[in-house]
Amino acid sequence: MDYDSYARELAGKARRASRVVAALDANAKNKVLETMARGLEDAAERIGEANARDLAAGREAGLAAAMLDRLEVTPKRLAAMVDGLRQVVSLPDPVGKVVDSRIRPNGLEISRVRVPIGVIGIIYESRPNVTVDAAGLCLKAGNAAILRGGKESIQTNLVLGDILAESLAAEKLDSAIVQVVRVTDREVVNRLLKLDTEIDLIIPRGGEGLIRAVVEASTIPVIKHYKGICHVYVAATADLGMALEIVDNAKTQRPGVCNALETLLVDDSVAAKFLPVLRERLEPEGVELRGCPRTREILPDLAAAGEDDWLTEYLDLVLSVRVVNGLEEAIEHIDFYGSHHTDAIVTSDRAETEEFLRRVDSSSVFVNCSTRFSDGGEYGLGAEIGISTDKLHARGPMGLEELTTYKWVVRGSGQLRG
Amino acid sequence: MDYDSYARELAGKARRASRVVAALDANAKNKVLETMARGLEDAAERIGEANARDLAAGREAGLAAAMLDRLEVTPKRLAAMVDGLRQVVSLPDPVGKVVDSRIRPNGLEISRVRVPIGVIGIIYESRPNVTVDAAGLCLKAGNAAILRGGKESIQTNLVLGDILAESLAAEKLDSAIVQVVRVTDREVVNRLLKLDTEIDLIIPRGGEGLIRAVVEASTIPVIKHYKGICHVYVAATADLGMALEIVDNAKTQRPGVCNALETLLVDDSVAAKFLPVLRERLEPEGVELRGCPRTREILPDLAAAGEDDWLTEYLDLVLSVRVVNGLEEAIEHIDFYGSHHTDAIVTSDRAETEEFLRRVDSSSVFVNCSTRFSDGGEYGLGAEIGISTDKLHARGPMGLEELTTYKWVVRGSGQLRG
Repeated sequence: MDYDSYARELAGKARRASRVVAALDANAKNKVLETMARGLEDAAERIGEANARDLAAGREAGLAAAMLDRLEVTPKRLAAMVDGLRQVVSLPDPVGKVVDSRIRPNGLEISRVRVPIGVIGIIYESRPNVTVDAAGLCLKAGNAAILRGGKESIQTNLVLGDILAESLAAEKLDSAIVQVVRVTDREVVNRLLKLDTEIDLIIPRGGEGLIRAVVEASTIPVIKHYKGICHVYVAATADLGMALEIVDNAKTQRPGVCNALETLLVDDSVAAKFLPVLRERLEPEGVELRGCPRTREILPDLAAAGEDDWLTEYLDLVLSVRVVNGLEEAIEHIDFYGSHHTDAIVTSDRAETEEFLRRVDSSSVFVNCSTRFSDGGEYGLGAEIGISTDKLHARGPMGLEELTTYKWVVRGSGQLRG
Repeated sequence: MDYDSYARELAGKARRASRVVAALDANAKNKVLETMARGLEDAAERIGEANARDLAAGREAGLAAAMLDRLEVTPKRLAAMVDGLRQVVSLPDPVGKVVDSRIRPNGLEISRVRVPIGVIGIIYESRPNVTVDAAGLCLKAGNAAILRGGKESIQTNLVLGDILAESLAAEKLDSAIVQVVRVTDREVVNRLLKLDTEIDLIIPRGGEGLIRAVVEASTIPVIKHYKGICHVYVAATADLGMALEIVDNAKTQRPGVCNALETLLVDDSVAAKFLPVLRERLEPEGVELRGCPRTREILPDLAAAGEDDWLTEYLDLVLSVRVVNGLEEAIEHIDFYGSHHTDAIVTSDRAETEEFLRRVDSSSVFVNCSTRFSDGGEYGLGAEIGISTDKLHARGPMGLEELTTYKWVVRGSGQLRG
């Protein structure tokens, strides 16, 4: 079968399956999620074998150690996938919730009701847990899922997909509610991305290159974030002790994730006092500081930070530091170099707080706390399918509700338009 | 200047202007809208002259009469544009509204607050009123607008754009809050559609060809509807008198718009009774009925309706009719041939009502009323920038709120992630 026919068949099956899953009530969805969780537990050996084949192929292909690590499904990681599904069981079902309603003067009852989006395509790299996490969230929100992981993890993903499909079949449901793309050639993805009458939403997860390629090729709406260049601005009135703890936490608690701090902005009036203390705290933790010219007047032996640094998501123990002249310059820097992910101010000035929160155009704006809180779980969403720095549909962490849409329901008694 | 530089300059100016308009409060926005309304009133002659040049060029180019009609700005139409702006003044400002908020166990105060989207590009055909309507709605929602109408209306649009820009300048605001694209070459649009870091949303308005071309070329999110193939299903238990009035109203009250009825589905059990009465009502009103084979068993001299008819948005006094075997077949037809715009059932059965409303996957689903109510004004939104048959961000009629997004605002007192 050619790639185009394969893509069309996948998408057509998903569209039909989407009607089945959309009609399930919360109990039925929870039952199949539990069956999936048990199915994964029971198949530990089968998953391990497939994963070993991926790892062997990866070693042979000379994959980097970090890549091999992400590929590996350890017993602990399998248990986390199973736990994840059970957490999704415990979340409330967003489908059917009435968003708002009104009765018009002519008697029409008009309401907006949450409904599933339909068919969602997830395109990701080599972490096999995404296969299970995304399947569970899409299903709970009443959607069919098409899952396409990196080719390095194909054997693992196929087995995970088989187990999810078997669980659906065991519950007498259409197994195409969750489909793993079985062909690794990129051309299949490119064909899928044009099927905008069958697929409603694409969520790419991975590096900026992957995401740009998906956006470029897709005629289907895409929700995404390219990167997370998060800032903390230490303002003139900041409690410097609090600022030190926040910067330390935001940079070092988990440096490899998108809500970690990348660029610190320090107000000129406190820079001479704050920066030496900061260095004393961070350098022993292995953080490399890079500074703008004014930072290097205070800490002369730091490496220089330039344009490239302001635009870089290090995802590592590196922190670029810039001294700015007040709020205006801080906001300008964030606006120009930032990625609209998460940006924070540390201040004790109320007016400055409100101005920062109002004017910084990021999906999450923080005052006096660590950027690491930018996360669906921390926000109380229960689980997260991803983070959006787009402006449309969903912004910031996306939970179950963001995997739904609404329809307008209008009830009349014979009304005609005059 | 080359097209790429021109597009980048436009988009860059819009991005800068978007920060100005986003910061305006409701009073300031209303004041400039009123200045625009007065500016248009005072410039009637200037607008008329520009419009006469477009009309003369159109006649010379052999434009169809309907096209010339759409192009014309009569005094009545100018008054309607002015009224439209004043209606927008009277609508509540969506910006700053708190969508929801919560306090987390660690004391973080987390809320979602409505904010403008940023820069919105509107791409439309030759009706110059869109220039003013879209500018007003975008501005009230705190956005900068880039407006690109059809080349046939360029002289009119440039003058309208100049008046809006002069009104902004008179209020000491950045005149790039509303920009009309001054170059008619399509290549400028294609360049604009790739500037996804400067432009946040594209709303195309026009025929299916225009919209498909925009979706194909754009890396910016697009909200749209391709067409409106609206259905009414007359069920077995329908009040046939009510059904007759609803079908008549939905088809004939304004046949040229997207929420007009295109295909009637009649339950087999009532077809023999209903169809002859329907014909007696509609044919004198000039409606051509086209029927499926079963319809033509009842009304043998009707023209045949086939696959093409089910897929056609007539926008005219033509109605295709199909006899179906119950709800299931009606839903299947709507699902397969429909455009997810607006679909209605006429029934007196409660269970059937609920099943139709739940299973029909359209942006608006109606029971016992005319499809013509699918409209922002009729829904109580106050005004409408367009209708979306997409699933993301906005579905159905889009008002001011749909021209906003939200941001997450997180207030802490030194919280760190453990």
